[in-house]
Amino acid sequence: MRKLKITELNRLNPEEFRQTAKIPLVVVLDNVRSLHNVGSVFRTSDAFLVEAVYLCGITATPPNVEIHKTALGAEDTVKWKYFENTLDAVTELKQEGYHIAAVEQAENSILLDHLEIKQSPFAIILGNEVKGVDQKVMDHCDTCIEIPQFGTKHSLNVSVTLGILIWEISKQLRNKFIQ
Amino acid sequence: MRKLKITELNRLNPEEFRQTAKIPLVVVLDNVRSLHNVGSVFRTSDAFLVEAVYLCGITATPPNVEIHKTALGAEDTVKWKYFENTLDAVTELKQEGYHIAAVEQAENSILLDHLEIKQSPFAIILGNEVKGVDQKVMDHCDTCIEIPQFGTKHSLNVSVTLGILIWEISKQLRNKFIQ
Repeated sequence: MRKLKITELNRLNPEEFRQTAKIPLVVVLDNVRSLHNVGSVFRTSDAFLVEAVYLCGITATPPNVEIHKTALGAEDTVKWKYFENTLDAVTELKQEGYHIAAVEQAENSILLDHLEIKQSPFAIILGNEVKGVDQKVMDHCDTCIEIPQFGTKHSLNVSVTLGILIWEISKQLRNKFIQ
Repeated sequence: MRKLKITELNRLNPEEFRQTAKIPLVVVLDNVRSLHNVGSVFRTSDAFLVEAVYLCGITATPPNVEIHKTALGAEDTVKWKYFENTLDAVTELKQEGYHIAAVEQAENSILLDHLEIKQSPFAIILGNEVKGVDQKVMDHCDTCIEIPQFGTKHSLNVSVTLGILIWEISKQLRNKFIQ
């Protein structure tokens, strides 16, 4: 099996990316501390044509050398916006008609295997590495999605969580809401 | 939506983890440089009950402070083994009847959306952050799985790639091969 050369991958250039239709998904980071996680979120969002990333609270914003090391330039292609308070991002998204899901372990959460997206546009909120999504933010979400986990640790890494979520949600959104 | 307390998550303790049936999946790291990626692979493998992680070539092994920072102890629960040469790991897995898939962008690769696992046990090989899976290793794999990507960057982060792969493969293995 011959590996493809970079020139054979037919990736978009930044201008083509700008003009390409995105999937109706906004990723909200609620006080994410790690610059590595923020960079990785940009890189994954670029790969799956996520509409925008909303950086809230203590979440760092580009330009930032450490974000760049992991994002590798995806922080320049993916649209982003900063909110001092995550609740302001939630309010704005609601006004714009987004269905908002926290990614957490909560009462009555929907396990990711059972998620069936029926509404678009869609937004997901990922929380702080230690505290998760703030309970006050949770109280304003429409639903909660949980990745089923079977081992000893309480949670997955933020960038891995988001990779799994964007993969699963983008598959559904591409099939249902994009021509 | 009330967030669950850690005590409500009902996670396994290390002894329970040892005794729990794993999914028939081995993750092979072919010369992965980043300790953060190695740690994250352990943490994700713990969450989805991966059978073992094979660390090859320059891939660092526990105990290691930097691996621990990301693995948070999962490097003690998930079984692992070190091989100086990745091809030796591949040879051993083949002798034990594993179906081996490289995770790469190659000619005739299977896009992850279309993956249908028909054989068990299964092994996946992830490559170096810059060079990917070595072509010589590719030549000994049974198949190649590719995550479809639509943006400007050539690839995803190793720990994100593995998160998506383990999620998708473990769903299928749980449904098909575990009682």
